[in-house]
Amino acid sequence: MEREDQKFWERVCQDLIEESQRAISPLIGSPEGGEIVKTGADGTPTTYIDLVAENKVVEVLNEVDRPLTLISEEIGEVNIGEGPPEAILVVDPLDGTSNAVKQIPAYGISVAVAPINDENKGHLTMEDIQLGIVKNYATNDVYKAFKGQGAFLNGEKMSLSSKQDLSSISMGAYVYRMDMSKIEELCKSVRRMRIMGAVAIEISYVANGTYEAFVDVRDNLRVVDVAASKLIVEESGGVVTDSQGNTLNGKLNVLEKTSLIAACNMEIHDEIMKIWRGFN
Amino acid sequence: MEREDQKFWERVCQDLIEESQRAISPLIGSPEGGEIVKTGADGTPTTYIDLVAENKVVEVLNEVDRPLTLISEEIGEVNIGEGPPEAILVVDPLDGTSNAVKQIPAYGISVAVAPINDENKGHLTMEDIQLGIVKNYATNDVYKAFKGQGAFLNGEKMSLSSKQDLSSISMGAYVYRMDMSKIEELCKSVRRMRIMGAVAIEISYVANGTYEAFVDVRDNLRVVDVAASKLIVEESGGVVTDSQGNTLNGKLNVLEKTSLIAACNMEIHDEIMKIWRGFN
Repeated sequence: MEREDQKFWERVCQDLIEESQRAISPLIGSPEGGEIVKTGADGTPTTYIDLVAENKVVEVLNEVDRPLTLISEEIGEVNIGEGPPEAILVVDPLDGTSNAVKQIPAYGISVAVAPINDENKGHLTMEDIQLGIVKNYATNDVYKAFKGQGAFLNGEKMSLSSKQDLSSISMGAYVYRMDMSKIEELCKSVRRMRIMGAVAIEISYVANGTYEAFVDVRDNLRVVDVAASKLIVEESGGVVTDSQGNTLNGKLNVLEKTSLIAACNMEIHDEIMKIWRGFN
Repeated sequence: MEREDQKFWERVCQDLIEESQRAISPLIGSPEGGEIVKTGADGTPTTYIDLVAENKVVEVLNEVDRPLTLISEEIGEVNIGEGPPEAILVVDPLDGTSNAVKQIPAYGISVAVAPINDENKGHLTMEDIQLGIVKNYATNDVYKAFKGQGAFLNGEKMSLSSKQDLSSISMGAYVYRMDMSKIEELCKSVRRMRIMGAVAIEISYVANGTYEAFVDVRDNLRVVDVAASKLIVEESGGVVTDSQGNTLNGKLNVLEKTSLIAACNMEIHDEIMKIWRGFN
């Protein structure tokens, strides 16, 4: 992405994050925010706070000078502005909805930008993401990455954990509503496990050493919800694959699902894959 | 407890919480805070931030006008002041140490007070706790209960969730480093699972409806770490037992361990026990 384009889209993302955070803030911790108001484009229930967050995103994007495509949970895929879209913006307007409603301090936004060019037009994947931003609204921490330029937490370059021994690591792992026999050995091998309930934030935790690894092998993560945080981990120097060990290159659309194994280095990733493959 | 005694010990608790929070605040998110400095009275490693937190607690208690016994993770059991102790203060100076070091926003303090009288002298249990306070330092939320007088979040009376259907609940559950086949059916039955990594805070979450239930059946929870939050859930109207469905009445000492199943009502507790008993 050209420097000028990068600046432009970063500004757009910052605006929509700021405006959306302000819009939902009165609903944090309120039962009203948690009321189910409709079914989203992805088939899952939409709560009022989700809708307020996304409506504000759409409102901000309607004021942008360049045409774009928005992909988001409730609205699906829409073109905004006149003429052929210059970029796809992949937005999860509220990562950790249930936490926001219950005031568990891990909820925020995930925004990813994939510029459209003659080569990728019509078939963009996660690999086309050039800019990813995740913000935890409860702490105001901002995780940001530009492809090829590194990853930053509140403007400071992040560093991963250097641990290489599974028995010493902290791992985010979504293990409920699944066949746990597949994951038991892994859960027995780590030092600590966490489930904060906000995947984009927790994947970003790998990028700055808060976690050594994040694992969700339920094949139920929306590609659009992890698009930004995948780039953030990779740009920090970490490893991100699906549960088969393959590069994540899911199509950028609201229905595409994936599994995800993120790790702070190849050693930890290998250890996780070894245990996981032994049971699958 | 007499009204005057209650006021006295509440003031003591408030002072030690305030002072201890101030003492550790420069260490939040710092690698220095996470350095292991010794082995605690309970046999687990003590980090620098744990020690700073506890030292401040001891310092504050040394200034208290009445004699007392302190039970705490690193120091074990000590008498403070002249004459026979009037109360046992059971303190976990830092619930969620790893979170504090890594700046995951769930860490704080747990303090419980059990007045000593002629009848319970020498054999106090969790049932003797009259005052419990848990504070999440990351959010400044204070959960507080007086036996027989209800439970309060930041001064407002708390209400539990009224959900009765397991498939709709949020459950905190520590399922790693254990035989997961015993807990799988339960983890498959709930709507959401969380592991925040700060048990006193998460048990308190049941008291205000953030969670419907909290489950740790690894028989590895320290009685002194859950003494305050047990009272908080019970005073809010919830149910707390061990994994056999028995009242928690573990002795107040630093080595005593327990399992714990807390639920917002008897229906949810029964459902959990039914599933858990089916596999054990």
